[in-house]
Amino acid sequence: MKKLKLFIPKQEINTNILSLKLHGFLMAQVDSDYSKKLHHNETNPYSSYVQNTFDGYIWVVTLLTYEAISKCYSWLLALKTIPLDGLTSPILIKNIDVEELTQESLLETFQEETSEQQFTINFLTPTSFKSQGEYIIFPSIRFIFQSLMQKYSRLIDNSDFDEELLTYLCRQSRISKYDLKTHYYQVHSSKVPAFRGRVTIKVVGASTMKSYIKMLLTFAEYSGIGIKTSLGMGGVRFEQR
Amino acid sequence: MKKLKLFIPKQEINTNILSLKLHGFLMAQVDSDYSKKLHHNETNPYSSYVQNTFDGYIWVVTLLTYEAISKCYSWLLALKTIPLDGLTSPILIKNIDVEELTQESLLETFQEETSEQQFTINFLTPTSFKSQGEYIIFPSIRFIFQSLMQKYSRLIDNSDFDEELLTYLCRQSRISKYDLKTHYYQVHSSKVPAFRGRVTIKVVGASTMKSYIKMLLTFAEYSGIGIKTSLGMGGVRFEQR
Repeated sequence: MKKLKLFIPKQEINTNILSLKLHGFLMAQVDSDYSKKLHHNETNPYSSYVQNTFDGYIWVVTLLTYEAISKCYSWLLALKTIPLDGLTSPILIKNIDVEELTQESLLETFQEETSEQQFTINFLTPTSFKSQGEYIIFPSIRFIFQSLMQKYSRLIDNSDFDEELLTYLCRQSRISKYDLKTHYYQVHSSKVPAFRGRVTIKVVGASTMKSYIKMLLTFAEYSGIGIKTSLGMGGVRFEQR
Repeated sequence: MKKLKLFIPKQEINTNILSLKLHGFLMAQVDSDYSKKLHHNETNPYSSYVQNTFDGYIWVVTLLTYEAISKCYSWLLALKTIPLDGLTSPILIKNIDVEELTQESLLETFQEETSEQQFTINFLTPTSFKSQGEYIIFPSIRFIFQSLMQKYSRLIDNSDFDEELLTYLCRQSRISKYDLKTHYYQVHSSKVPAFRGRVTIKVVGASTMKSYIKMLLTFAEYSGIGIKTSLGMGGVRFEQR
């Protein structure tokens, strides 16, 4: 898995609209067969969001599968400017950082003993879940880990998602602390109800469970959490203590 | 129903500890038969909490039944100072405001047509619910209105709490906006997980449902919401637009 951070100046449009435009740009660059294939995917093998920092924006693109890396990595890394419809001039890329996460290092995290009991997720961009046709604007242990386990099983180890393990995990952990507010995220003509902020999860179970949660949250920094992670939603940072 | 607001200077102890001490003071003033009776009540006919303001504290005491008013109102109104264990000097009362809410005016609110669709609750002091032995730190329509309907039916109209009406109300409304954070509230030797902040409820149903919700939230300013409303928790303001 690769994460590219493209540092760009602040723009005349907000991070929400910019995220949508950058996703359009991304899709326009890949060959049409691959973009059609992506369109039919249940879970996208990439995520894209824009982070607002003190002195600029960061466009974060993650590529989760070998195929996504082979289709997008080189040309993204070679980008100097990004021409976008509706902007007066192309966006100048100041710098690009690359981070990597291998499946092996994730499995090592899983096999390592960990004494940590509390894990904090910082929801950097608006995050939401969908259940039975409704948007869910309060996070829960079940929605967070169901999203991560589904993304992991579909994209990384091609296994079936283990419902029993999720139920066990929910019983062994709970949200112990949060600081959250709602945020309506614009996607084309609709506004998706979502939340932003911090959640701390306390794990009471065995050490194996803690390591598994740590592994999933490390993965979360690449996969994002919840819905529409390719359109700028669900970008998270896992705050290790 | 009566609400007394006792304006006092800031103290050397925080509002949490002060709330517990003021509750102790309140119980010590009423005759022991009544205080024993209160102790066995499922729902207290009063609430007490301390609000932090720019230039001082406000001790808010509400009296919900005729009996509570007859036992507490006069001597509370006549208070000049409050001697509390552990404080170097008695608390000087600067001013006392009295507000009143009658059952008639609540019923008028219920009978009035209302076009409002959104109602905001400001949780002024840490609020929590208990369900199946667990503390609930995320509010939900069900927990908020179940608490209010139970308090109302037990204290005001001595009716049975209408579970079907609650289910109907939950279907007709949802939390559309929030800004909340957890807060652990000290009660004797334990810390009760709770939340503080703002919640906006959107009502999609008939006008009657809106009026009923408006009535319950007007009542909430006297009853408080959730658990331990006599010990400083669940103090709320209903923000009418």
